[in-house]
Amino acid sequence: MSTERPRLHGYWRSTAAYRIRIALNLKKVSYEHMPVDLVRDGGVQHTAAYRALNPAELVPALEIDGQVITQSMAICEYLEETRPEPPLLPHHASERALARTIALDVACEIHPLNNLRVQQYLKGRLDVSDTAAVEWMHHWMAAGFGAIEARLEAHGRGGDTCLGGEPGIADIFLVGQAYNADRFGFSLAPYPRVQRVVKACRELPAFAEAAPEAQPDARPAA
Amino acid sequence: MSTERPRLHGYWRSTAAYRIRIALNLKKVSYEHMPVDLVRDGGVQHTAAYRALNPAELVPALEIDGQVITQSMAICEYLEETRPEPPLLPHHASERALARTIALDVACEIHPLNNLRVQQYLKGRLDVSDTAAVEWMHHWMAAGFGAIEARLEAHGRGGDTCLGGEPGIADIFLVGQAYNADRFGFSLAPYPRVQRVVKACRELPAFAEAAPEAQPDARPAA
Repeated sequence: MSTERPRLHGYWRSTAAYRIRIALNLKKVSYEHMPVDLVRDGGVQHTAAYRALNPAELVPALEIDGQVITQSMAICEYLEETRPEPPLLPHHASERALARTIALDVACEIHPLNNLRVQQYLKGRLDVSDTAAVEWMHHWMAAGFGAIEARLEAHGRGGDTCLGGEPGIADIFLVGQAYNADRFGFSLAPYPRVQRVVKACRELPAFAEAAPEAQPDARPAA
Repeated sequence: MSTERPRLHGYWRSTAAYRIRIALNLKKVSYEHMPVDLVRDGGVQHTAAYRALNPAELVPALEIDGQVITQSMAICEYLEETRPEPPLLPHHASERALARTIALDVACEIHPLNNLRVQQYLKGRLDVSDTAAVEWMHHWMAAGFGAIEARLEAHGRGGDTCLGGEPGIADIFLVGQAYNADRFGFSLAPYPRVQRVVKACRELPAFAEAAPEAQPDARPAA
């Protein structure tokens, strides 16, 4: 492990970058904020300088231990492998699978469909109205949060974290997505287990300090 | 670990189920095929019986060791943790991060946008033409395969597997997605490193036996 301070290339409102802020805070890894403005001037993520960090032109990208890692799930797994304490994953394989499944429900089924670039494609190239674009987001959030609520119920969970005990990877991804739910007027009320986790975790310092509004590049709501 | 034979609920054309077929074959885990017809009668994945297995109403779902695991990435990680040989992930943390990043480039950035349910939404609710729906798929495949090609180039890779050596998680996800590329007329020619991996891996028995056309529920092309 390098002793150099990691640099997180992110954007205050990116829920994927938000995940990594929480993970680094939980692991007590001090890092430098490298804001990437996803909206100004057509998006800094599309510049050659940023593409050299992440050819996918997405945030986050984490410079750590002499390399760049992108994809938030890969970053979390890397942090877990190189900085095991406190753990973001449970000990037993079955529990780890459940934790990862919930995180991936967000990362693979909700977030990719509601990302900025997808909204841009819908409204720009497909001429979808603002209302229909929000309905699209709500549709995928309902499917995703509904599945997560059902998983928590099926596995007899209902506490302040998805898996019980200390917060981990499932909570990190869930809280990130909940920010987008709030932002786009999607109510979590039909998902009481999800809602309880989000409410409880948001109050923890590692989560609160990672919140979009608390970031140096945050802008007041338009 | 249970001695009962795992049961894989999948669909021949689902690239996410295809990944798990390859992973199980590479690990030499014998399993039972449980076909879930995603298209007939509105989709068996939406029935109450299937929702009890996976409330996300998606394939794959793997019954293994007395539990059900969904989300293909979580399944692969579980297999790796419970059946470590042969490994699907490299040994060193940095290499593991690269392998996972490529797999997640597929799982988070390409596949979710090109999934059956997304095509159904585009054509059904947004009245998008067949041509525009295919353009949409090609757009996200170009972005995703382009990023993967750039990663392979940046990391000095260019062999018969993404990371060099034995095939693993990155190859599994890549070959799955390449099936969809072929199916929807997207050429991999602009991505020579990707193309080489796909060509080489497809010839390996673990991949060939997992191919959509080789499955018991495969149907002749319409």
